This record gives sequence, structure tokens and C-alpha cells, in this order.
Amino acid sequence: MRLAELSDRSGVPTATIKYYLREGLLPPGRQINATTAEYDGTHLRRLRLVRALIQVGRVPVAAAREVLRHVDDESLGRTIRLGAALWELPQGPEPDEESPATATARAEVDRLLRTLGWDSAREIGSLSPVHRSLVALVAVLLRLGYPCDAELMAPYAQLMHEAARRDLDRLETLDSDTEKVELAVSSAVLFEPVLRALHRLAQEEESARRYGIT
Amino acid sequence: MRLAELSDRSGVPTATIKYYLREGLLPPGRQINATTAEYDGTHLRRLRLVRALIQVGRVPVAAAREVLRHVDDESLGRTIRLGAALWELPQGPEPDEESPATATARAEVDRLLRTLGWDSAREIGSLSPVHRSLVALVAVLLRLGYPCDAELMAPYAQLMHEAARRDLDRLETLDSDTEKVELAVSSAVLFEPVLRALHRLAQEEESARRYGIT
Repeated sequence: MRLAELSDRSGVPTATIKYYLREGLLPPGRQINATTAEYDGTHLRRLRLVRALIQVGRVPVAAAREVLRHVDDESLGRTIRLGAALWELPQGPEPDEESPATATARAEVDRLLRTLGWDSAREIGSLSPVHRSLVALVAVLLRLGYPCDAELMAPYAQLMHEAARRDLDRLETLDSDTEKVELAVSSAVLFEPVLRALHRLAQEEESARRYGIT
Repeated sequence: MRLAELSDRSGVPTATIKYYLREGLLPPGRQINATTAEYDGTHLRRLRLVRALIQVGRVPVAAAREVLRHVDDESLGRTIRLGAALWELPQGPEPDEESPATATARAEVDRLLRTLGWDSAREIGSLSPVHRSLVALVAVLLRLGYPCDAELMAPYAQLMHEAARRDLDRLETLDSDTEKVELAVSSAVLFEPVLRALHRLAQEEESARRYGIT
């Protein structure tokens, strides 16, 4: 398809598509002659992901470019490629190494991972920005005096593991590794807010069941 | 305790405490004489919540004041009081009523709530900003061409319901309704990011188990 059709089918204005092309967020089309390029389904799919990242997720263009670089890096193993793409997304806070609460938090997270038998997560450890941000968040809770230890987190972690199994089962249904990584990235940006809304709605439902609506 | 001790025990500078008092985020202490007021455990607890809202959750001062007004409103029933406090927190997007995807999304959310038997959530419906923001998020996914129907969401919603039961069980262990609402608010601000980090960490663990670490 030509640029005009790509714009029609994606709902993205041609000027925006040209901007994405210039910024390297969208791979160039197949050049037919000096002024015309041909685009296909992979461009449409990529455009959707770019909009998810930039327009919905408010991911800065430079970060989006890094995410997409990893999405396209077929030389990486699947876990590393997935991780690398997700790790370039905006993450939670970094741990404050000056605070004594950080050491306690790190010990609790480690105890949590042992309890759960999450050996790979323990092995990756603080290489992962997700692991570091969990430590930072637990430290904030502890510093404010709210309880947050391995026992409290474990059952929630098990529910989230159930959700993660389901996430990966969905990925398995896709053909190529690139599509898998694309879905993982768009899920992190688009589906996490859905999950949070479902959690809050479940709290309203459960509260109304226990205490009535008024 | 005096202001200086309240500052020591909370780790909040006296100037900041005075600012919170002026802004009505912290109730005044018991005035002993013209220049001295006496504070107690409820002030310490409230100070912790104010820091969670403003410093960690980056909730604007005006919104924080509204949240706390509902936390303190003992005339309300428990569900309404909880809801009112939580509804004043920054919420997700509002549905775009101009978009045809919004009607489809609203129908899918309604079908989801029927499937789950979440009758109270259906009854509260779009009165709840959480319900509205779920509709808006589903509409965005659909508009971008990502699948997000009742069947896809239902198992995730059930996991979140399990988490919500656990949340409310934790609330039950507290004595007063005010403490319950305070914990619900601080959980929304502080524990939701922990849950998101646990979900991402579970994805890393599960991916490493299925495909290896490299």
C-alpha cells in the first residue's frame, strides 16, 4: 500500500507517519521510484505499537526508539529480547542506597523470591529495573511505617504469577518472535492500566457486597 | 506530643507540618496555651497518609484535601466513604463519547460484569470514575486494533477480585472506620505500584522458565 492508504487504515495523519519515519520509529517502505514507497502489514502493525507507546503511554520518542530497537533485534534470545524491550519503558523509582530502609526492603524482596521459588528472578536480581523498582517501592512503604514484608506480598505475587502465565500463553499464539515482543510491549503500556482498573472495580464490588452500597 | 516531637517521629520538617496545618491537610492539635499545641497518634498517622498522597503519589494538594475530607466524613456509609475518598484520587482517562469504539467498549465492560456476576459494580455503573476509566481504556485498545473483550478480561478480573478480597480482609483487622479508609487510600497510592512491579517480575520469571535466561 502507499502512504495515503497506510494513513487511512491506521488513522494516523501522513505528516505524523513521515515524522515517525524520519525519527526511525517506523522502518522505511520499499522504494518503488524516487518519490513513492510501498508499505505492508508490518508497517501497519508497527504504527499501532508506536501510537500505543507515544500517544497512549506518553513514552518519550528517544525511549520508544530504544524499545523498538530491541523489539527488532533478532540476534537476542527471547527472554533477553523481551526483557530488553520492556526495560527501556519508563520504570518505577530507583532505590535510595543512602536509606537504611532500602537494605531491609532488599532483604524482604529476596525472602519473597525464595518463598515463591522465583529462582530466575533472584538470579537476574538487581540487573532488572523491575527488581530495583520493587525494592524502592517496598522501602518507601517501610519508611512511612506501612507494613510490607514477604508474607504480605507472597499471595499477591502468586496472583500476579497466574496473570503472567496467562500473558505468556497469549503470546504463544503468535507466529513470530517480533510479534510476541510487540504484544508484550503494548500489553505493558495498554493492558496494565486495564488491570489496575479491574482491581479498583473489584474493590468496589467486594466492598458493596460486604457493607452494602450506601 | 509537641510539634518538635511530631516532626522527629514522622521525619517531616516542622515547616512542612505547619504548611499542612495551614492547608487543612492535618487537623489542628489541642491548644494548650497561645503558642503551644499538643499532637497525638492520630496526627502521626494522618501525617503518614499526607506524605503518601503528596510526596509519593504526587496527588495535588487540592485533591488530597478532598480525599481527606471524605476519609473524615463519619456521616457516610462505609462503601460510599471508601468510594468517595478513592474517587478523589487522580483517575484514568474519561471515555470519548464521540468515538464509536466507546459504545463497543461500554457493551464489553457490561458483558464482563454480567459474566462475573459483579452486580453492585453494574448498579454503580458509570457513576464510578473507575468504571468510566475502564471503558475509556478498553476503547483505546479496540481503536488501536488490539483485542480486549469480556472473554479476555474475565480471568484477569477474577484474579483481581481475589486480590480485592485480600485487600478488604486486611482492612477488617483495623479498629476504626477512619483507619480502614486511610489504609484503603494509602494502598491505592502505595501498593498499586508494588502490584504492578510484582506482575512485571512474574513475567520475567515465567519467561525465563519457559525460554531460558539468555
